[in-house]
Amino acid sequence: MKFTELFHYTLRETPSDAVIPSHQLMLRAGLIKQLASGIYAFLPLGYRAFRKIEAIVREEMDRAGAQELFMPVLQPLELWRESGRLDIYLQENILFRTKDREDRGYALGPTHEEVVSSIARARIRSYRDLPFTIYQIQTKFRDELRPRFGLMRAREFCMKDAYSFDIDMDGLDASYKKMYAAYTRIFERCGLKFRAVEADSGAIGGDASHEFMVLAETGEDVIVACGSCQYAANLERAEIGGELQDIPAGAELKPTEDVDTPNQRKIEEISAFLKISPQQILKTLIYLADGKPVAACVRGDHEINEVKLRKALKATTVELADPATIERVTGAPVGFAGPQSLKEKITIIMDRSAAPMINMVTGGCREDVHTLNVNRNRDFSVNIIDDIRVATPDDVCPRCGAGTLNFHRGIEVGHVFKLGTKYSKPMGVVFTDTDGIEVPAIMGCYGIGVGRALAAAIEQQFDANGIIWPVPLAPYIAYVMPISADDEAQMSAATEIYNELNDAGIDAILDDRNERPGVKFKDADLIGFPIRIVAGKALKDGNVEVQVRKTGEKRVVPRADVIETVKSIIKELS
Amino acid sequence: MKFTELFHYTLRETPSDAVIPSHQLMLRAGLIKQLASGIYAFLPLGYRAFRKIEAIVREEMDRAGAQELFMPVLQPLELWRESGRLDIYLQENILFRTKDREDRGYALGPTHEEVVSSIARARIRSYRDLPFTIYQIQTKFRDELRPRFGLMRAREFCMKDAYSFDIDMDGLDASYKKMYAAYTRIFERCGLKFRAVEADSGAIGGDASHEFMVLAETGEDVIVACGSCQYAANLERAEIGGELQDIPAGAELKPTEDVDTPNQRKIEEISAFLKISPQQILKTLIYLADGKPVAACVRGDHEINEVKLRKALKATTVELADPATIERVTGAPVGFAGPQSLKEKITIIMDRSAAPMINMVTGGCREDVHTLNVNRNRDFSVNIIDDIRVATPDDVCPRCGAGTLNFHRGIEVGHVFKLGTKYSKPMGVVFTDTDGIEVPAIMGCYGIGVGRALAAAIEQQFDANGIIWPVPLAPYIAYVMPISADDEAQMSAATEIYNELNDAGIDAILDDRNERPGVKFKDADLIGFPIRIVAGKALKDGNVEVQVRKTGEKRVVPRADVIETVKSIIKELS
Repeated sequence: MKFTELFHYTLRETPSDAVIPSHQLMLRAGLIKQLASGIYAFLPLGYRAFRKIEAIVREEMDRAGAQELFMPVLQPLELWRESGRLDIYLQENILFRTKDREDRGYALGPTHEEVVSSIARARIRSYRDLPFTIYQIQTKFRDELRPRFGLMRAREFCMKDAYSFDIDMDGLDASYKKMYAAYTRIFERCGLKFRAVEADSGAIGGDASHEFMVLAETGEDVIVACGSCQYAANLERAEIGGELQDIPAGAELKPTEDVDTPNQRKIEEISAFLKISPQQILKTLIYLADGKPVAACVRGDHEINEVKLRKALKATTVELADPATIERVTGAPVGFAGPQSLKEKITIIMDRSAAPMINMVTGGCREDVHTLNVNRNRDFSVNIIDDIRVATPDDVCPRCGAGTLNFHRGIEVGHVFKLGTKYSKPMGVVFTDTDGIEVPAIMGCYGIGVGRALAAAIEQQFDANGIIWPVPLAPYIAYVMPISADDEAQMSAATEIYNELNDAGIDAILDDRNERPGVKFKDADLIGFPIRIVAGKALKDGNVEVQVRKTGEKRVVPRADVIETVKSIIKELS
Repeated sequence: MKFTELFHYTLRETPSDAVIPSHQLMLRAGLIKQLASGIYAFLPLGYRAFRKIEAIVREEMDRAGAQELFMPVLQPLELWRESGRLDIYLQENILFRTKDREDRGYALGPTHEEVVSSIARARIRSYRDLPFTIYQIQTKFRDELRPRFGLMRAREFCMKDAYSFDIDMDGLDASYKKMYAAYTRIFERCGLKFRAVEADSGAIGGDASHEFMVLAETGEDVIVACGSCQYAANLERAEIGGELQDIPAGAELKPTEDVDTPNQRKIEEISAFLKISPQQILKTLIYLADGKPVAACVRGDHEINEVKLRKALKATTVELADPATIERVTGAPVGFAGPQSLKEKITIIMDRSAAPMINMVTGGCREDVHTLNVNRNRDFSVNIIDDIRVATPDDVCPRCGAGTLNFHRGIEVGHVFKLGTKYSKPMGVVFTDTDGIEVPAIMGCYGIGVGRALAAAIEQQFDANGIIWPVPLAPYIAYVMPISADDEAQMSAATEIYNELNDAGIDAILDDRNERPGVKFKDADLIGFPIRIVAGKALKDGNVEVQVRKTGEKRVVPRADVIETVKSIIKELS
């Protein structure tokens, strides 16, 4: 492609609503254009990158034996009634809907479990018709409350979604493993640093769900990974290892004592005021679990993990209680709660790590008062002891029990999930098993946010000048420019090199624009072509300059060696 | 692909609402599945065929210098207000619409002129930014009044839509020609018999629009093509050639005479009753043009072309008048209208071919009465003489004036169109020209119905047993089967051949099902694989049977020659 023929523009200014680097850079580099909030067009350069990642996804799905099909965007609402999901989606208000001229309602598919189930049930009769995995690469629609971050949280976006159908759990395990392996290959081939982490196990139990996270400092998610073994999990769900410890036998339990702590509410304030370590303090927070107040206690240096708290309480929702509820339940304003003096009898849940604590400092359940030497069992009882806190770098790996935990930031780009019979049962995706009994198929589903993965690649690697594409996703790998398009020798050398690159199967772009070198360098850096080849003054000595975008490294190489040099750089970058 | 692993099924029964062969066969062969009226999923076999045609379209668009981008489905309604098309589309009620949680309205794009204009105007500043052609392959939505014929008239369907932007009409001509040439290559490469025909010239005039029609006996459209020159047109728009002839000078005009014609209303009835040729009768039909009655006259053996009539009257709509209007205007019931005795003064429009007629037979404007020897100018005057009739095989070519016209049936699969400034003007797609003046870009648009082209390929070639795919679109080219999957020698030979075919880059499928040969033969014919290779009894003599689906021709060839035979059949079929 010649730059003068490319449909392309760059923006000087960063659009004000773009707050994360990938969103800013994709807009500035002219890869995407916003049409409405959360709705984007891919411009030709952006679409080239998109098609590269799409091709990798497709190849690896096919290689894993998944078969591609294509399901419609418009989904009759009856299907959503059948699966029982319609009400949930309507409640969350994220379903785009439309009606036809005969007033029949359709969802603009946010996902395709219902449709794929309706297709599968037309096919499946006997166990001999299973297993199979089918997938599509298709646009999805979600009317997000806050569309933001460009392609990261768009309202119209592209997903690869695959669905496996098996006769039993062993079959599902095998299908799941194939998809897990395919995802690993996909993200490796994309040139991305990533981790597969354990995610919420959902209704089935076991490690039935994994998220694939691209590592990036700007990622919204935090990943906890063991330095010794393969354990990795989303911080939201990272378990705390070790045996449950009780209060040490024979521990000396001191008598309680109230102390004045005027205006000292936060752990660090109390710690400093009383000159004690946060580990001696028991932090007590009042939550509403499905609307009912609950006291949750963790060690002062720990944080409550609300996902774990919700699960431990078997609640649908948990949220911090409002000040009025806190005052009613504890008899004190916010900041002075303690489980031993609550005014109302409510469920008390304690984190496992707090179980062995003795002579704790807690809130006194009166304004500006804390109590010293509070002890569980003697001064209060708990209803539940469970893992309800956020993991920390001080924790050891819950899996191997040895390794220390490393914390990374990441972006979820893929999710593999064991569904079981969640959809096959209500939607009648059934088959006759070897005993002649009709049973529901065991399903799995496997998603990749294709546009999101592209944005994540940018989040993973960029600098002040722009994008730094991994070679497999770059819209063009090699950018060739003459310093001056007017200089015939430079222009003809650049054109020759451009042609040779294309002949060698290396995606190249020739910047034949009549622009100042500074403008061209800037655009090349912004768009982020991995390799830049400049035909300039060195040409007189028979040389051209080859620069690597990622490292900034420059090589002056003989004109004749350019293609070999580019090839070896591509190898080095892979 | 092995058949036992394929996600696939065939239907025994033809679904009752499928009335055309491609729709019936695509459903029966398990290529598509209906989800709702006019809404289909592509199943894996169908999607393979779809992806093949899509790849050809993409390659030829790229080769023609068009650049691929991807525009969203959701289009803010404001864009449709800007272009002025919203009201028209709302009136026709074919726009699927949705609203987001903030009550902003969106169209589900039925076409993308508005969106592409909004993208182009962000890019274009000066004449140096032009020309360019951009395209996408994207799903479109139209809430059709009567979705039918499967993929032919679906409500959710795939289009390739390209848009060119030029600085002037010469530029548009060049862009248009490139797309025309690309379309020709696309349909040639698909292995389709087609004609490019002149279509409605629209606002710009000249031959500014062509339709690409796949020839098929079941086609809805009729194409008129000259046997001598390149002229071809949709029958709807086929011109009638030759000079306008007036009443011959010195013609003997006989006196009018009313005759009783009890219950003789139709041309053939009057012709038989009065023993005159239909060519002596003037057929007069009362139309409502934009609601106002008009008398349209053609020679008795000709048919009125309503598209031409509408254009000649410069009307937006024309439709046959209701009986009450006819009676009021003519003073007689339906079947006895004549321009010489109308009761109301209305516009009379006459077809050019009727202009030289003398001593005509017309309706008498009284029940059961016709009038002989009616003559124009003497007995009535016409307001307009124009070409308002349907072309016939008796007409000569309007272009070369020599060739006779051949009639074909066809299916429109592509349309290239010169838009001019229809969208660029209202939507401000402007640039500064060489004189520093801001002018709107000159646009063209170019569509291919990708799914429709696939269906048209089936309409073009099928038989009682099923589909006959052209090689370039077949989901698999070679179908390999052992007569008995239990027979080890047959199965291993079939498997070897299957592997060799794949190694040779020939898409092959191995029917490893444990089914009766009859079932397998039937499925293979129904799905329409171009070449069938059977490992059966002949294997004992070292032979296999190779059959061509299209011709039915069977060859018994030595096992070692199979690949070469298949290759040469592929060549013969191309």
